[in-house]
Amino acid sequence: MRLQATYDAVFDILTPTPFVLMLRPRSGAQQWIVREEYRFSAENIFEFTDSYGNLCQRLIAPSGRFSIYTSAEVITTDYMDSAPGAPFVEIQNLPDDVLCYLLPSRYCEAERFGQMATTITVNQLPGYDQVAAIESWIRNVIRYLPGTSNIPLSAMEIYYRQSGVCRDLAHLGIALCRSLCIPARMVVGYLYQLEPMDMHAWFEAYIAGRWYTFDATQPQINGGYVAIGYGRDAADVAIYNQFGPEAYPATQNINVQRLED
Amino acid sequence: MRLQATYDAVFDILTPTPFVLMLRPRSGAQQWIVREEYRFSAENIFEFTDSYGNLCQRLIAPSGRFSIYTSAEVITTDYMDSAPGAPFVEIQNLPDDVLCYLLPSRYCEAERFGQMATTITVNQLPGYDQVAAIESWIRNVIRYLPGTSNIPLSAMEIYYRQSGVCRDLAHLGIALCRSLCIPARMVVGYLYQLEPMDMHAWFEAYIAGRWYTFDATQPQINGGYVAIGYGRDAADVAIYNQFGPEAYPATQNINVQRLED
Amino acid sequence: MRLQATYDAVFDILTPTPFVLMLRPRSGAQQWIVREEYRFSAENIFEFTDSYGNLCQRLIAPSGRFSIYTSAEVITTDYMDSAPGAPFVEIQNLPDDVLCYLLPSRYCEAERFGQMATTITVNQLPGYDQVAAIESWIRNVIRYLPGTSNIPLSAMEIYYRQSGVCRDLAHLGIALCRSLCIPARMVVGYLYQLEPMDMHAWFEAYIAGRWYTFDATQPQINGGYVAIGYGRDAADVAIYNQFGPEAYPATQNINVQRLED
Amino acid sequence: MRLQATYDAVFDILTPTPFVLMLRPRSGAQQWIVREEYRFSAENIFEFTDSYGNLCQRLIAPSGRFSIYTSAEVITTDYMDSAPGAPFVEIQNLPDDVLCYLLPSRYCEAERFGQMATTITVNQLPGYDQVAAIESWIRNVIRYLPGTSNIPLSAMEIYYRQSGVCRDLAHLGIALCRSLCIPARMVVGYLYQLEPMDMHAWFEAYIAGRWYTFDATQPQINGGYVAIGYGRDAADVAIYNQFGPEAYPATQNINVQRLED
Repeated sequence: MRLQATYDAVFDILTPTPFVLMLRPRSGAQQWIVREEYRFSAENIFEFTDSYGNLCQRLIAPSGRFSIYTSAEVITTDYMDSAPGAPFVEIQNLPDDVLCYLLPSRYCEAERFGQMATTITVNQLPGYDQVAAIESWIRNVIRYLPGTSNIPLSAMEIYYRQSGVCRDLAHLGIALCRSLCIPARMVVGYLYQLEPMDMHAWFEAYIAGRWYTFDATQPQINGGYVAIGYGRDAADVAIYNQFGPEAYPATQNINVQRLED
Repeated sequence: MRLQATYDAVFDILTPTPFVLMLRPRSGAQQWIVREEYRFSAENIFEFTDSYGNLCQRLIAPSGRFSIYTSAEVITTDYMDSAPGAPFVEIQNLPDDVLCYLLPSRYCEAERFGQMATTITVNQLPGYDQVAAIESWIRNVIRYLPGTSNIPLSAMEIYYRQSGVCRDLAHLGIALCRSLCIPARMVVGYLYQLEPMDMHAWFEAYIAGRWYTFDATQPQINGGYVAIGYGRDAADVAIYNQFGPEAYPATQNINVQRLED
Repeated sequence: MRLQATYDAVFDILTPTPFVLMLRPRSGAQQWIVREEYRFSAENIFEFTDSYGNLCQRLIAPSGRFSIYTSAEVITTDYMDSAPGAPFVEIQNLPDDVLCYLLPSRYCEAERFGQMATTITVNQLPGYDQVAAIESWIRNVIRYLPGTSNIPLSAMEIYYRQSGVCRDLAHLGIALCRSLCIPARMVVGYLYQLEPMDMHAWFEAYIAGRWYTFDATQPQINGGYVAIGYGRDAADVAIYNQFGPEAYPATQNINVQRLED
Repeated sequence: MRLQATYDAVFDILTPTPFVLMLRPRSGAQQWIVREEYRFSAENIFEFTDSYGNLCQRLIAPSGRFSIYTSAEVITTDYMDSAPGAPFVEIQNLPDDVLCYLLPSRYCEAERFGQMATTITVNQLPGYDQVAAIESWIRNVIRYLPGTSNIPLSAMEIYYRQSGVCRDLAHLGIALCRSLCIPARMVVGYLYQLEPMDMHAWFEAYIAGRWYTFDATQPQINGGYVAIGYGRDAADVAIYNQFGPEAYPATQNINVQRLED
């Protein structure tokens, strides 16, 4: 599937404000970036790669109108890989750089979900089937209410609240996986035909030697995912971090359309 | 000051259990490791460096008695550097790899402490003096009760509880610093003449182009610190992580003695 | 200056052949990539970042016609920075990751140029002026003969030959700098109005805390440089490496044109 | 096998001289460092990890006598692993960070050895057996003359000279492997019962998903190897690099003895 994904925002900036942006999808196992465009109404932009491999931009937004425009043409797989029955990876066989995705993080209090995860995944084979059971349980139990929250909440908060946005459901999935010693990470990006259209968040779990995609907000996982950033949770993968007086986008448009192959 | 620091623990292991250990001090700006020794009653130990630069060991503890013994001879400075008046570093001038220490993390909900930090540091010059005011405020307001907690608590939990162990006070200091856009990180290690002797935790803040040491558990900061691990908070710098049925050390001894120069 | 740089090549491949490509300019201190496009007639392309920070693509070129097309719109400075008189950085003050650019490498036998470099830079202030003297000496002494060589030659070979392509002159400059303990690295990329148009190579030297651009093939350094890859020498920064039976591009076009601001 | 390896050197330094040292063995697949000691007659020593994972120390040797003393107690395997018949790894399946060991480097002009390597390995299965044939060919054809050279020579120079020290034979082995698209790297370290005792160098080749040890200077490879540093060739793994007027050690002692298990 060939997609054109666009993010376009305008901020009203009162005083020059440092930003760190994370808006560039990278080519990877199930997506290939064919064309990219990014325009910011700022000068002296510096790029760096963070410790998760995300390509970030640092800049100072000047006072007044500050605009961000990014667009990418991406070839994605029509169906995300799935692997029912794929086995759990023993801790000692995990790659070094996957170990950090076992630890608790800001919004994923993994150490407090052990009992719940055991109950949810009872009778499942260790590995893919456990994560599928977690995803299915979230889909059935936690109400997905897009657009209801601006502030990230933690997995435990979401569990008590029993509803949340895409980011919240991902946090809960991640915390449950980690409590079973399955590495799990947050992904932000675009999803074709997401309703209502917005930036999206989902999670990946490390099973049988690679990462697999899970998304409890959708009835089933088809293709059309474009990953922008990876991290331990939402604290790591904000599409923008600003430092100083808060400025929300005055306007923000996200668009994902399908192109002819 | 020349110190000999030793950590010695024995676990009763029921079933072979993967461990990740973080027990090796590294030579750095204010400490030089002259001699090290580390013996584990396990085979097939693999070392790796995590994304914070800590040297970690992976191993599988066999069933039965599992012992860890590490010892280091370290030359440390007699006095940790301090720098009253040293200036705040503007976000845009921070090194790329320091940016992650501005973000909220598992036990440091930085985004919820902005108002409190502003109040505590009122009339202070941005930078070192703000952090010194935070350290002093914690020292005066939060009761330091060593040995009262095994489970890491978050900065917000400690604020409500008004008391905590060294790790807890460090979390609160870190959260307050970050809410002022001052990068802050957790340090675990040894402290000479700590009463009662135990592993210790403190925090560092990035000011005027380098990291400075702060420790609200002590009336004042002298020398005698031996850093073992750095991270965003306690989730990153456990001296050991085990995966599987929990096993606490049956015996654990920590010893720090001064050697002749 | 706003440039559109395009690389376009077609290979006739006899048997499926692994390629590693290095064709994506990165945003940096003196260039900002506004738009990029890259199309390869291959599937399963994987990107990785090498130890120099270059963004590389791995793929297997299928039998038959294999085409590469990349295009970037880049804003570059009109004039590259220069800094006559800027001082030499003492070894102990160099950043850790700059140290490797002091060592000899495949085509830069730095350890054999000490005497020559001392002679060339006699009476120059240590630092920028030494490198400017080296650049000027190469410009005057070594004949720049574009298009005369496909095989990389070493600095010593070029010195004996007294002529070379852009890559060769850069190797000589790098070897001379390193022999004076000035870190130096190879850059490949595009140069606006290069005659005849081709991929280009030049070098950078680390002086007074940052990298400066030098190019002995041009009478003077104006702007219009678009860096694609950095490395110790040509061994690190081939725009493509192929593994297996050699296949040269059947056709190859490089184009750099100026766009309206 | 339990070994005690010691390196001890004294330099006469005329003027304060920056050094970069690489003298600390790391725990890895076939060696475990139980105890380490390192004493330098210098202050302000900083450690860093280079891009190959080696732990390096930076310091300024003061004028006068400058002494280095390092000692390590190491458990090594009694026999290095070997794997006759183990298969060649297709380029596309190599890990990203192994790719750099395919490229030519300062002393390993891999691109000039293709024909020779093909001849030496005729009729061998691609992979381990090819490297074993290369090792055997070097052992038979190139005379190993320890102590005859202070200056690193390149693989091509050694081939013409038909003799060399351990480092030279390793360079030739590496260049031949790379010319067959087998990743190969240089190792420096200690070898128990090496005659005459000195620092040693050998090489590793990447086959069937891991690195294997080869050493053409020995009639056969037993155990007793203690690796200190890894790199592309001798340019990367000098046990010390000094910058400024050359100073050779006035005295240098290397000792490797066997301890009781």
